[in-house]
Amino acid sequence: MEGKKVVVVGAGPVGSLAALYASSRGAVVEIYELRDDLRNVDTTPLNFTKSINLALSERGINAIRSTGSAGLLDKILARTIRMYGRMLHLRSSSGALLQQSQAYDVHDRFQRSVDRGELNKVLLDHLDSLPNVKFFFQHKMTGADFRKKKAWFEATDKNSTAPSDRPKEIEVSFDFCIGADGAHSSTRHHMMKFARMDYSQIYIDCLWCEFTMPPTKEGAFAMPPTYLHIWPAGSFMFIALPNLDKTFVCTLFGPVELFTKLENGTDEELISTFDKYFPGVTTFIPPADLVAQFKRNPHLPLINIKCSPHHFGDSVVIVGDAANAMVPFYGQGMNAGLESVRVLFSKLDQTPNRAEALAQYSAERTEDAHVIADLALANYIEMRSSVTSPLYKLRKYIEERLDKYVPSLGWATQYSRVSFSNMRYSEVIKRSKSQKRILTTVLLAVTGTGVVGSVAGVWLLWTRFRHQKMFGLPWSGR
Amino acid sequence: MEGKKVVVVGAGPVGSLAALYASSRGAVVEIYELRDDLRNVDTTPLNFTKSINLALSERGINAIRSTGSAGLLDKILARTIRMYGRMLHLRSSSGALLQQSQAYDVHDRFQRSVDRGELNKVLLDHLDSLPNVKFFFQHKMTGADFRKKKAWFEATDKNSTAPSDRPKEIEVSFDFCIGADGAHSSTRHHMMKFARMDYSQIYIDCLWCEFTMPPTKEGAFAMPPTYLHIWPAGSFMFIALPNLDKTFVCTLFGPVELFTKLENGTDEELISTFDKYFPGVTTFIPPADLVAQFKRNPHLPLINIKCSPHHFGDSVVIVGDAANAMVPFYGQGMNAGLESVRVLFSKLDQTPNRAEALAQYSAERTEDAHVIADLALANYIEMRSSVTSPLYKLRKYIEERLDKYVPSLGWATQYSRVSFSNMRYSEVIKRSKSQKRILTTVLLAVTGTGVVGSVAGVWLLWTRFRHQKMFGLPWSGR
Repeated sequence: MEGKKVVVVGAGPVGSLAALYASSRGAVVEIYELRDDLRNVDTTPLNFTKSINLALSERGINAIRSTGSAGLLDKILARTIRMYGRMLHLRSSSGALLQQSQAYDVHDRFQRSVDRGELNKVLLDHLDSLPNVKFFFQHKMTGADFRKKKAWFEATDKNSTAPSDRPKEIEVSFDFCIGADGAHSSTRHHMMKFARMDYSQIYIDCLWCEFTMPPTKEGAFAMPPTYLHIWPAGSFMFIALPNLDKTFVCTLFGPVELFTKLENGTDEELISTFDKYFPGVTTFIPPADLVAQFKRNPHLPLINIKCSPHHFGDSVVIVGDAANAMVPFYGQGMNAGLESVRVLFSKLDQTPNRAEALAQYSAERTEDAHVIADLALANYIEMRSSVTSPLYKLRKYIEERLDKYVPSLGWATQYSRVSFSNMRYSEVIKRSKSQKRILTTVLLAVTGTGVVGSVAGVWLLWTRFRHQKMFGLPWSGR
Repeated sequence: MEGKKVVVVGAGPVGSLAALYASSRGAVVEIYELRDDLRNVDTTPLNFTKSINLALSERGINAIRSTGSAGLLDKILARTIRMYGRMLHLRSSSGALLQQSQAYDVHDRFQRSVDRGELNKVLLDHLDSLPNVKFFFQHKMTGADFRKKKAWFEATDKNSTAPSDRPKEIEVSFDFCIGADGAHSSTRHHMMKFARMDYSQIYIDCLWCEFTMPPTKEGAFAMPPTYLHIWPAGSFMFIALPNLDKTFVCTLFGPVELFTKLENGTDEELISTFDKYFPGVTTFIPPADLVAQFKRNPHLPLINIKCSPHHFGDSVVIVGDAANAMVPFYGQGMNAGLESVRVLFSKLDQTPNRAEALAQYSAERTEDAHVIADLALANYIEMRSSVTSPLYKLRKYIEERLDKYVPSLGWATQYSRVSFSNMRYSEVIKRSKSQKRILTTVLLAVTGTGVVGSVAGVWLLWTRFRHQKMFGLPWSGR
């Protein structure tokens, strides 16, 4: 990529990382971003482009680590808060408040809560220090010809003193274009005129609204900051992630019907709904403030996007939300996006023919992207209701004990493989399905036939494992 | 709609019909079309926008009839050629040419072959005669705000003598916008920024290439013009529809792999493939001409588009390919599009609140659109291979006999309900499924258990029908 002109569309975390990877391979990088430099504006307006607080986990960290940029990862990690598990806020049958913690991982691995803007700023500052990277903020992509390798951008700078009242359009030639311009990607839109792309977008029946939970009067966190707090309410939920400034960023997720009811109801109805389903929240967010935030902050939809392929020829590839926007319930959206960049460049490094590398990348990554998108959808049900079910807890308990005390089995929960490993998502799901089959057999045997059954179950478990070890592991002698 | 400003995007058959419906309700209609007036150009370039010859059937005819425009339907029907059935071109096991005809309908109803351009011209000429309709050809939609009811168009007239080298953009306000701008609809693209639209597009593994089969030296049709000719070859096929000028418009449909092989092969290989699988074709299209046409004419993909909803608020609706592009194998693409216009305006006529009417239309029409899109996909398999299967023929035979000789049963083939009735597509599929269950039971009984079984089958058939009649038909006394 030495000396090649690489155009990156979008200066979010994923686009910034892509620019960093390209620049470290000697490319001449230009980043075009629709919005203003977020470091120049005091507050990001709370709109479609503002995302909830993010969970940074192994895949994202590994992708940043793999840039090899000294000190970069440390700077980012310093801006994160460790969350070791979920804290469920419930009411007991007597009506008393009940808090239950669930560790994410039996090996004490953790998620990191991070502000999207903070993470983005560190990456942008780092890019600023590189001689072969140039930014073009407030530039809107208006067209692209991916055969001729040209794109057009309109400078939308509203403070411009240019005499013309029409925005200026510039033509940009490139060797390679990386579209990291989000769920409503222009790059994808123009790419679809060239690639025969299968594409689907689905709005799930869920809206979200952000709230801020202030610190206590003493300036401390209102709740323990080492958890992702969840108020599961069956068909909807409220969650809270800690921020460096001792606030929590909270989000209400619920079906359109619930939002419509709350929007059309009285303030008292909103407060009583919170008190009924999200016990304790109005202790930390005063009721009047809660109502004001619900009215002021937008109620936004969630979209699930799948497409294939992710590239066209040797000229363009889309990554991150542009290629696979997912619902936020596995905390994997940004992690998957950052990982895409790492996988993309490892293919480009390995295969000199770029068209071939992109085709390989696309085939592998679309498979993984579809898997994590589906898992994220399924996790909404887990977070808002399954987390409280005895069967769910039992399975988690057994799987974690197997992981911890019989490490040679290579057993692990799906959650830990997704969040704390770099295993391909498609491989994670294969292993989980296999584990689930085995565990279901055992659980059925245990619960169904008592002692006899459990002996049989253990035997079955054991023989299956031996089988798995013999055929699945390199050191098994076969 | 009296006095309201209606903007129609797209001047194809569906857009033209929508303009006609709106104008007859007193609207002030403006039609914006990306391309030049097709009546001004000598030949339509054979590209993405040129479609194969079309089959006009009851739904399309009924939609034109329902405009109430005197003489319009007759003018259109005069430009069509009746096709009473399929003519299959096969080779017998001894290698001899074999032609088998299959009537479309037991009541001698027929399809009509029509040139898309000819049909379009009649509609455009008719619109020209209306005082409240105005055309804007060579106008490209560049943006739309469906909350403010404004759209922007660029005049792309290349013969313009305007001094500026930038196309002029005009702002158009409207009360209601109808997007009939095809599978790659701009209206839909901009609507998606306002409506929370579920959307999917899938390219099927099939390309198509057009051929023209010339008349004989004596100036006659090369084959009987009263058929849709099919050369079924299992995973691919060749078809031919008659034209008024005594030519046939032919199309090769096949998987990408076949096209790649033919594109990279020699001329001789192309000819021998045709002779092997499409017996007789090179008698009518001289081999050298066949090769030239295959090289000259584009090899185009087929797309299947589903989306929901088809409208936003009270300001915009999409119809035709813009809302549901389907593969051409049921001959229903244009018919469904024209029917959409009829259904849309019947909802608008019935319900004074336009937002409500559009919501009703969208709910009903998306259901029907998804059904016919799926049927069209399934019919590809029927046309290229099932038509030759004995089971297929047996079922068709039995169903047609039941339809003809026991009309009180209300039995009909799916094909005839789709092509020769105005029953909702979703209702067609319900009835077909019910008939299929009954027929399968009977066929299994007949073939499986001989006489005893067939008696039981007939009994079952009879009781099911009695049941169906009792609950399904208004005159059953319940």
